[in-house]
Amino acid sequence: MRHETVKVVIWGFGAMGSGMAKMIHNKIGFQIVGICDRNPEIVGKSMYELLKISKPKKDIIIQPNIENVVKKGECEIVILATDSFTKKAYPKIEWLIRQGVNVISTAEEMAYPKANEPDLALKMDVLAKEYGVTVLGTGVNPGMMMDLLVVALTGVMESVDKIEVSRINSLSPFGKTVMEEQGVGMNVSEFKHKMELGTLAGHVGFKESVGMISDALGWNVTDFKQTMMPIITDIDRQSAYGFAAKGDVAGVDMNATAWVDNQPVLNLHHPQQIEPELAGVLTGDYIDIEGNPPIHMSIKPEVNGGVGTIAICVNMIPHVINAKPGLKTMIDLPVPRAILGDVRQMIEEE
Amino acid sequence: MRHETVKVVIWGFGAMGSGMAKMIHNKIGFQIVGICDRNPEIVGKSMYELLKISKPKKDIIIQPNIENVVKKGECEIVILATDSFTKKAYPKIEWLIRQGVNVISTAEEMAYPKANEPDLALKMDVLAKEYGVTVLGTGVNPGMMMDLLVVALTGVMESVDKIEVSRINSLSPFGKTVMEEQGVGMNVSEFKHKMELGTLAGHVGFKESVGMISDALGWNVTDFKQTMMPIITDIDRQSAYGFAAKGDVAGVDMNATAWVDNQPVLNLHHPQQIEPELAGVLTGDYIDIEGNPPIHMSIKPEVNGGVGTIAICVNMIPHVINAKPGLKTMIDLPVPRAILGDVRQMIEEE
Repeated sequence: MRHETVKVVIWGFGAMGSGMAKMIHNKIGFQIVGICDRNPEIVGKSMYELLKISKPKKDIIIQPNIENVVKKGECEIVILATDSFTKKAYPKIEWLIRQGVNVISTAEEMAYPKANEPDLALKMDVLAKEYGVTVLGTGVNPGMMMDLLVVALTGVMESVDKIEVSRINSLSPFGKTVMEEQGVGMNVSEFKHKMELGTLAGHVGFKESVGMISDALGWNVTDFKQTMMPIITDIDRQSAYGFAAKGDVAGVDMNATAWVDNQPVLNLHHPQQIEPELAGVLTGDYIDIEGNPPIHMSIKPEVNGGVGTIAICVNMIPHVINAKPGLKTMIDLPVPRAILGDVRQMIEEE
Repeated sequence: MRHETVKVVIWGFGAMGSGMAKMIHNKIGFQIVGICDRNPEIVGKSMYELLKISKPKKDIIIQPNIENVVKKGECEIVILATDSFTKKAYPKIEWLIRQGVNVISTAEEMAYPKANEPDLALKMDVLAKEYGVTVLGTGVNPGMMMDLLVVALTGVMESVDKIEVSRINSLSPFGKTVMEEQGVGMNVSEFKHKMELGTLAGHVGFKESVGMISDALGWNVTDFKQTMMPIITDIDRQSAYGFAAKGDVAGVDMNATAWVDNQPVLNLHHPQQIEPELAGVLTGDYIDIEGNPPIHMSIKPEVNGGVGTIAICVNMIPHVINAKPGLKTMIDLPVPRAILGDVRQMIEEE
């Protein structure tokens, strides 16, 4: 086992980044060497105080500029938890590659960047190889529940005819921002107006999941469509941060279909709403694959999106350090796994 | 994409080996270059005739001696489908390594050979590296349903407290040999007598699954126990090849527990019987993991053991060819996946 700790910087100290810092703090063999975030409410504050954990002698102060945090040789990997889109994350990733550090990005599009940004994906791959580092995008979805897990289950199949994936989750645990992004509480015409303007986020990641699954299996996708619909409630629904009156929007129902050789063989369903139980909806992750043998998988309730994303980003750190240089995706690396012992035992010697 | 086909030899042409030959025959980019089996009933016969598929100009005849089948440079990988135990498979694997070919073994113990045969595992690893080839053991169980899939699901978890895995399957589709190995139709005293003599096979693989899971997660196993019990039926049960009268044995119930730091945190349940529905037993694969977040997965009915093993062995061929030399296990390689396109597109260029 190597002696040196795995030195990590976290860039973006929101719900995800701070959750990762806490998780890493509780593991053996890691060392957080810096935190970067521009939010004036936390700049200059102690990471330990913000996480409400006891402070050691050497404090870690939230820095607003990444140049003061990532220094060559003092950090092995950066978790970038700032964006959803590859285009926005790209300049940060490029800068990090040039510092010679490995990168894990939480940006949904980075889970399979080739799908929406093939040119940037190629640039990142070439640059990462030049600098001898590895770049990975991951998360619970895209990254695992609607793509990598599907791929893994086909591993015991001779043939695959059709794939249906559903992730039915509750938005009740989430805060104000998510309520707005998903249209919770809007009336139907307001929802449709914002949808047409393109200002409703909904789920980002269908094209990435389709790209990952089809490339892994060798499917040639000939067409792809996705839709966004309001989930209109027929009863009042109240959650901690959201309220949808009867007749208004309780969430957003997103669906996608990919055609292979003109057959609609891959269907993704992802309805998200507050208090789904009130409408008789049971949350869960469901994968149904027609073929030989057929597979009908369910995980009830769904894997929690917040903790799940925090966990998979941290858990992939050893795999990213062990990987050959370049841009990697989840289908290139060994299966993810929890880190229950000393992370240094998971790092291969050079 | 490379031009050359992936040249495969199958050693052992029983239910598994012949199923793999048929699967490979139906895929693009593969070429079966030889079949070896000692069974006098099939030696000298045409593979195509035995598989009931139309014969091309160049026939493939079942050969009794592997020396006549595997020739240096004419074969890239051998699937060895002859044994359950590493000790019995080892001389064959050693010979294959020395021919410079990659090996996939269906032997249950080979799914994690370190668990029962650490010395042989080390020898295979050293030898495979010396000859520049890769050796992998896999199958549906051990290899996937009770181990690799468990590992993969923990990838979205921050912490893991306890793991329960159940594979409840029907023996009804299987033939005479399996009925005898699992004690179907015996009276209880006969079953117990054979169990004490050690002549009842039951499930081989618990120690391998425990080894794979605990090494992947970094758990230090301090104790391991497994038990075998008859499943006594309270009604007559009739399947295609088996019959258990009321009061006799309908199958075998195997259970294992692994202790980590003296806590029984990993429990494996694997009851196998004919006509489980008659006793109100629903077949399936179940994984329940306590921790953060908790995960409750079910696959109903269970992934078919026969087709599943055939598929995963064939599906791992590109991963084995792409891997660095040495003895590998499923936790070292990228996630398994079905091969739906041309397998040559899955082979990395040197």
